[in-house]
Amino acid sequence: MSAVQRRSAALRPAWNDPLIYLDHAATTPLDPRVAEAMLPFWTETYGNPSSIYRAARDSRRSLDAARDSVAELLGAKNTEVIFTSGGSESDNAAIKGVAFAHRGSGHVITTRIEHHAVLNSVEFLEKIGYRATYLPTDEFGRVDPDAVGRAIEADTILVSVMLANNEIGTIEPISDIARVTRARRIPLHVDAVQAGGFLELDVDRLGVDLLSLSGHKFHGPKGTGVLYLRRGTSCWPLIHGGGQERGRRAGTENVAGIVGFAEAFRLAREELNERVRHVTSLRDRIIRGILDHIPDAYLTGHSVDRLPNLASFCFAGVSGESLLLALDLRGIMVSTGSACTSGSLDPSHVLLALNLPVELTQGSLRISLGHRNTGEEVDRLLATLPPVIKSLRENSVNAGLTPVNSVRGSGGGVSTES
Amino acid sequence: MSAVQRRSAALRPAWNDPLIYLDHAATTPLDPRVAEAMLPFWTETYGNPSSIYRAARDSRRSLDAARDSVAELLGAKNTEVIFTSGGSESDNAAIKGVAFAHRGSGHVITTRIEHHAVLNSVEFLEKIGYRATYLPTDEFGRVDPDAVGRAIEADTILVSVMLANNEIGTIEPISDIARVTRARRIPLHVDAVQAGGFLELDVDRLGVDLLSLSGHKFHGPKGTGVLYLRRGTSCWPLIHGGGQERGRRAGTENVAGIVGFAEAFRLAREELNERVRHVTSLRDRIIRGILDHIPDAYLTGHSVDRLPNLASFCFAGVSGESLLLALDLRGIMVSTGSACTSGSLDPSHVLLALNLPVELTQGSLRISLGHRNTGEEVDRLLATLPPVIKSLRENSVNAGLTPVNSVRGSGGGVSTES
Repeated sequence: MSAVQRRSAALRPAWNDPLIYLDHAATTPLDPRVAEAMLPFWTETYGNPSSIYRAARDSRRSLDAARDSVAELLGAKNTEVIFTSGGSESDNAAIKGVAFAHRGSGHVITTRIEHHAVLNSVEFLEKIGYRATYLPTDEFGRVDPDAVGRAIEADTILVSVMLANNEIGTIEPISDIARVTRARRIPLHVDAVQAGGFLELDVDRLGVDLLSLSGHKFHGPKGTGVLYLRRGTSCWPLIHGGGQERGRRAGTENVAGIVGFAEAFRLAREELNERVRHVTSLRDRIIRGILDHIPDAYLTGHSVDRLPNLASFCFAGVSGESLLLALDLRGIMVSTGSACTSGSLDPSHVLLALNLPVELTQGSLRISLGHRNTGEEVDRLLATLPPVIKSLRENSVNAGLTPVNSVRGSGGGVSTES
Repeated sequence: MSAVQRRSAALRPAWNDPLIYLDHAATTPLDPRVAEAMLPFWTETYGNPSSIYRAARDSRRSLDAARDSVAELLGAKNTEVIFTSGGSESDNAAIKGVAFAHRGSGHVITTRIEHHAVLNSVEFLEKIGYRATYLPTDEFGRVDPDAVGRAIEADTILVSVMLANNEIGTIEPISDIARVTRARRIPLHVDAVQAGGFLELDVDRLGVDLLSLSGHKFHGPKGTGVLYLRRGTSCWPLIHGGGQERGRRAGTENVAGIVGFAEAFRLAREELNERVRHVTSLRDRIIRGILDHIPDAYLTGHSVDRLPNLASFCFAGVSGESLLLALDLRGIMVSTGSACTSGSLDPSHVLLALNLPVELTQGSLRISLGHRNTGEEVDRLLATLPPVIKSLRENSVNAGLTPVNSVRGSGGGVSTES
């Protein structure tokens, strides 16, 4: 057992913890193998990769190797990979970077169900003189590629559509959208933050020009991300300064974080089929179990084209936050939707875009699996959820809140099949 | 010995390494105590702080405690501390954030010796319609507070001056500059990235409205930083998205990194007097030793108002890069100036701003100490440097390069006193 292995053994998370973590779309625990890869870069190999003495060249070599690895796994050139501090930075860098390269004006197309890192970046651009179109989706959260084509104007400079939605898991038809944008020579940005751990990500097969990834969504470290930027795509830096990342992202490189990102990404690709098979089977048991045993439960998002690890529902007559807290008391960690806006009482912009009735959107539940979740954990979830929802509904009826039958059957995006 | 202590013992860096690290202005090794503080947040406490179940509330509590600690040490409110991915992001966020809050136009004042994270942010603003003034300095790198006053125009929206220069160590008269900016009600941004480990940083005593810090400059983790933003200062986010950092910096918080930043900052403050005393004495021995024993050696920067850990020189008739490589071969790691531009062959913009002759700027050397450097290491440096420089000069004379006497005595910022 090497010194590094010994160290990493101490870092192994408590997978046997009685708590059940079903919120992997919010964040994931660091893979012990990733922790092992990062450790030497905290104290032993600490040189600044921009320095030129020997000890710093070790940092540079590891940084280059990480970049080569990520590039190869994306089907990209290593010069097209920019390391960032996370998915939000990557999204901001892509959208603002392309916009600023067009000098103060232009039209951006995006969708109503994007992550706020995209939506708020586009809204920022609108405030400073750009124009934007926010495309609707169908009731399952799918964007119509033809609608992208119809939205293109003479001064359209960018289209930004996510690969998979973070709240409902719907996978967008990116290759079809790319055919439209390529024919019109408009760069296509894809937020693949939520898809990174479980979908194929070949930039040429997808046809994307910019793509955002976040390390902590696939058992890498928080505070790490990647922006893929296709050669020839005009894009100004979001963070100006030193010449790091070929002048496209300034700041001393977070070498440990970058090495960790690359290792987590490599593991996610290497184990992709196995992980997808495992979480898909658990996800489908959850969907069947909930739709079969809980009345007035609606699956949100697309029934087939959805992330293999994500099951999302709306329950009539239940407050999502009460549900989340009740499950927390029973040791089960889930989410009502995006973790980034958990504090907010507004209904989710994604669920509103599906045209679900507001009463339903308030009873949302997102269950997102990781490859270390077990069948026993799913059993416990499925045994816990029905009585909890029954009890919450009885309480809300007793308190004079929305009765169940007032929204029965009125939801869009409903399916009893997965 | 606790589990955490055992883990951290394995992380202890090889302080007894025969290599001598004298480039702490580029980056510093992680303090083992900081590594110890960070470890639990990689795998045990991995919840997304924005989630609301118990396991995530542990992350939130640690994040809040880190923010409280940093705020208290800065003499700030905890609502005024924004965690970022590093000093470059903080500088960009400050300068662009204030500019965008002024909606598309305005005048920014900065200096010719700022870090590129500031200079290039201001140049970006010029490209999109703002105006800028770059103030000169005297031959020691000092900015004249009265010159700041004279540069202020009716539409000046921001003044940005660094606390201490990263190449020559000169400390700027920030409190005096703040008196000028406050009288005119113009926000003052201070890049304190290089000063963070060794100077007092009370935001009220300094009189600053925005202040940038970087964790890896004081034995914290790379990829972490802080932007102090005084309440009431108009500033738009650089990274839009989720509601993290009270809506002023989106992206899932790098909890381990933030905890590490706070611990490194706390240690730097707690041990400030001791560290300053130690590095000042080593620095002064270096300055005396070099000026006394190497002919045609010039101290760059201010002789008194300089960072306690930084000694910077120009040597006539020597190429800085050759000097750096020759010292590297002898196990001594130093820098020619800023690590961020090490690859560049252009003379340093800082040395040019001092009006040093170009021949001198090409022979620059920056020695930056850490509190773990020893007198023996300084002895070895002082024994190594004179013969190395003598030999390099002989080689360059033999190769027909600039002879020593052509620049003798022509440099500005020269001093034989420290």
